[in-house]
Amino acid sequence: MWKPDRDSNKPIYEQIADYLERRISYGEFPPGSLLPSERKLAEQLGVNRSTIIAAFAELRSLGIIESRTGSGTRVNKTKWGATPKHTPNWRRFAEGGNFLPNLPFLRRIREALIQNPTLIDFASGELSADLAPTKEIAELMNNYEYTSYLGYDNPQGSTLLRQALVEYLAKYRGIQTTESSILITSGSQQSLYLITQCLLSPGDAVAIEDPSYCYSLPMFQSAGLRLFRLPVDAEGAQAEDIRALYKKHRIKMLFLNPNYQNPTGAVLSDERRKQFLDVTSELGLPIVEDDPFSLTSYDGEAPLPLKAKDSAGAILYIGSFSKIAASGLRIGWMVAPHSIVERLADARQQMDFGLSIIPQQVAGQFIKSSYFEPHLDRLRMELRFKRDLLIEALEQELPSAAQYTIPQGGLHLWCKFNNQINDSKLLDESIKKGVVFVPGSVYGSDSGFVRFTFARPKAEDIRLGISHFSKAIRELDLNV
Amino acid sequence: MWKPDRDSNKPIYEQIADYLERRISYGEFPPGSLLPSERKLAEQLGVNRSTIIAAFAELRSLGIIESRTGSGTRVNKTKWGATPKHTPNWRRFAEGGNFLPNLPFLRRIREALIQNPTLIDFASGELSADLAPTKEIAELMNNYEYTSYLGYDNPQGSTLLRQALVEYLAKYRGIQTTESSILITSGSQQSLYLITQCLLSPGDAVAIEDPSYCYSLPMFQSAGLRLFRLPVDAEGAQAEDIRALYKKHRIKMLFLNPNYQNPTGAVLSDERRKQFLDVTSELGLPIVEDDPFSLTSYDGEAPLPLKAKDSAGAILYIGSFSKIAASGLRIGWMVAPHSIVERLADARQQMDFGLSIIPQQVAGQFIKSSYFEPHLDRLRMELRFKRDLLIEALEQELPSAAQYTIPQGGLHLWCKFNNQINDSKLLDESIKKGVVFVPGSVYGSDSGFVRFTFARPKAEDIRLGISHFSKAIRELDLNV
Repeated sequence: MWKPDRDSNKPIYEQIADYLERRISYGEFPPGSLLPSERKLAEQLGVNRSTIIAAFAELRSLGIIESRTGSGTRVNKTKWGATPKHTPNWRRFAEGGNFLPNLPFLRRIREALIQNPTLIDFASGELSADLAPTKEIAELMNNYEYTSYLGYDNPQGSTLLRQALVEYLAKYRGIQTTESSILITSGSQQSLYLITQCLLSPGDAVAIEDPSYCYSLPMFQSAGLRLFRLPVDAEGAQAEDIRALYKKHRIKMLFLNPNYQNPTGAVLSDERRKQFLDVTSELGLPIVEDDPFSLTSYDGEAPLPLKAKDSAGAILYIGSFSKIAASGLRIGWMVAPHSIVERLADARQQMDFGLSIIPQQVAGQFIKSSYFEPHLDRLRMELRFKRDLLIEALEQELPSAAQYTIPQGGLHLWCKFNNQINDSKLLDESIKKGVVFVPGSVYGSDSGFVRFTFARPKAEDIRLGISHFSKAIRELDLNV
Repeated sequence: MWKPDRDSNKPIYEQIADYLERRISYGEFPPGSLLPSERKLAEQLGVNRSTIIAAFAELRSLGIIESRTGSGTRVNKTKWGATPKHTPNWRRFAEGGNFLPNLPFLRRIREALIQNPTLIDFASGELSADLAPTKEIAELMNNYEYTSYLGYDNPQGSTLLRQALVEYLAKYRGIQTTESSILITSGSQQSLYLITQCLLSPGDAVAIEDPSYCYSLPMFQSAGLRLFRLPVDAEGAQAEDIRALYKKHRIKMLFLNPNYQNPTGAVLSDERRKQFLDVTSELGLPIVEDDPFSLTSYDGEAPLPLKAKDSAGAILYIGSFSKIAASGLRIGWMVAPHSIVERLADARQQMDFGLSIIPQQVAGQFIKSSYFEPHLDRLRMELRFKRDLLIEALEQELPSAAQYTIPQGGLHLWCKFNNQINDSKLLDESIKKGVVFVPGSVYGSDSGFVRFTFARPKAEDIRLGISHFSKAIRELDLNV
């Protein structure tokens, strides 16, 4: 956000007038539109209201804006510019296109965090700064010789990183593959986007876990897919549900997150894994297996992915560094039949012409470096510590109100509250008290559920955050 | 591509058998499908045919494949696996989805370059390795302190880079803007993708230059847009054509590349610039201005972009580092009304969750560094030198056959040949002779046109490349 330069020779009110004129001329405030109030602008720009009044007077004298008592200040409709210019109707364009905006809850959370960066953040599904390997990555960047050609890369992604991932997948996930079966993506989000956009057609039916991260992705709706639910209990989803869905709706694809499922933390049981593989190979049905959390396993032993036993070649496997190293790297991968990798790589060339070579090099160096294992050990220990802090805080602040299963890996705690509390009111009240979380309905659940991401806030803020939250929930329900 | 490891203790034929088994189990060769011939595999893997015969024998003994005289080797339909597995019909999935594959010519060029990296490359629209600031960027990476949080970034892109671009745009392109009006993208391709996907709807009519880079983008067709032509002559496109198109087809948006247009190299004349601004502001019609080449201007003085005079706020301005620094950075930007920037940033979160922070930091450091200006000076000099080498070679090898206007900036020479030569045959013949280019029809022109990118081949290869090309063209037409 622009702020006036207090060291400049130009008076602040003039800087503000110039700034507003620029925004007006760039169509952010079209002719006839209402400007923000003097009070609001003063607050945003951190100046006195009298400075805004002076800036407005300047713009009025130039014929750029006009003010009428009681109806605010507007951009001049008639006098602006030498000849009447027609600004494109940007609002119409912004509302056009196939692409649905993000869910209102998620946008509200994002805005709240921008407006007040001191909010304690149980909402963002990522690691806190101190858990990311910032120093290690800076060290690698400072010491490695970057001599490779900075041209357009292989559409599947950097060969070096794919080679490093072949070893990584064999060592940590029991997956035997070759680099021709790997597509580097900018994270699981892009993997899912490519699959929904390029392999499925509008009207296709797919099955997703309930509750599930996939519900929070308007991309499924934007692609015109019909979504069907696979209820998740303590042992994950159930394969038997697939048969009925397949019969009735001819579902085309299945989205599963078997280890430390987002948001529930559930781990798919061994027996159910086998059933899923059997049912889907019987039906010739592909599974998209999302596996972002396995390496966070607090005791170091996450179950192997379905992909490790995929003798029918039915699984599109998705992984990423976002939850185990740094989301800001924007590096993920997909393991899939080569024909699918080629198709998605080709389509991605049309979307963004592939990823920057630099973070791919850095990520490849990181997993091959001696930093990687100690980082993982520390990450697991710290996540377990933060999980325990959260549970302790909940037990003390809301002893009988919160129900949950203690997760053995991942970044989140999925919490049910006894009361049928309005999600939206609880979020608003929590933001007022200084804390954010993601309401369960974002993942398709009934109201009264909350996802707390304990990985994101600083350890020392967890107790205070839950204290804020308990005040918010008590405001809405005296019985808690 | 996988190759056997000659230093391994495992015999090569066993490595190959394992490799093929893996590819089969991953569904690249479904049950019943034909494997490549022994001869072809031997060639691909760089081994003797007898080694492939041994690998096949191994797989046959395991019941994984079966061979019949005269009908090749197939994956076993019945015995593969303990129970019959149904592999998903990946071919159907790969052909599904809304997204059109890349143009056949472009895919053919890509494949030719992968198969034979010694081809002289006049096709890839990018800088050669020696023109990219590889050393400077490595230097920055090695010396800068990377301490910033590697978490999810601002959806509009790194604040530091946007601040650096505000200065850059003012200094080099005469554009006054604020960082709230800037969206960082992974290059012009992503900017165009976001615009076509999120601001336009299927069935919308848009005007594009003829010939134009936009014709080579299936993304326009994938988005269901109707394309109308604005013929480009030596002074660019003509604004008068807009009025007729608007009346007849209600075009919604206009795509222009005013400086050193791709592929023609034309520069839109001052008079026509004014007319475009007048007509579009009269009609309230937005212009997407693509400006990737201006800083390559050989005499250092490219005309200012339309955006610099955009008093109606009608222009979505697109820039990038791909053609002036390094395409492998994957950093571009859009300057647009804030409401549009917000809409596109929100949609992009659904597609890839934004860009990696690392190349954004590096790019921001680079343009603010003392390396930037000397790099530009060298780039301009070298591009002019390569342009002259190309023209000299054409004059000597094909003295009367090639017609062109000498470009004053950019990476390409647009060449017309007198004869109605079949594009496809000319490309095939050229690949055989050791050189690739892009046939003009990729940009929507009649046949007989060729785009030579002189920026991409090494200076010392330009003469030889044109010699190869002239042999190819003489093969098809003895009159040349």
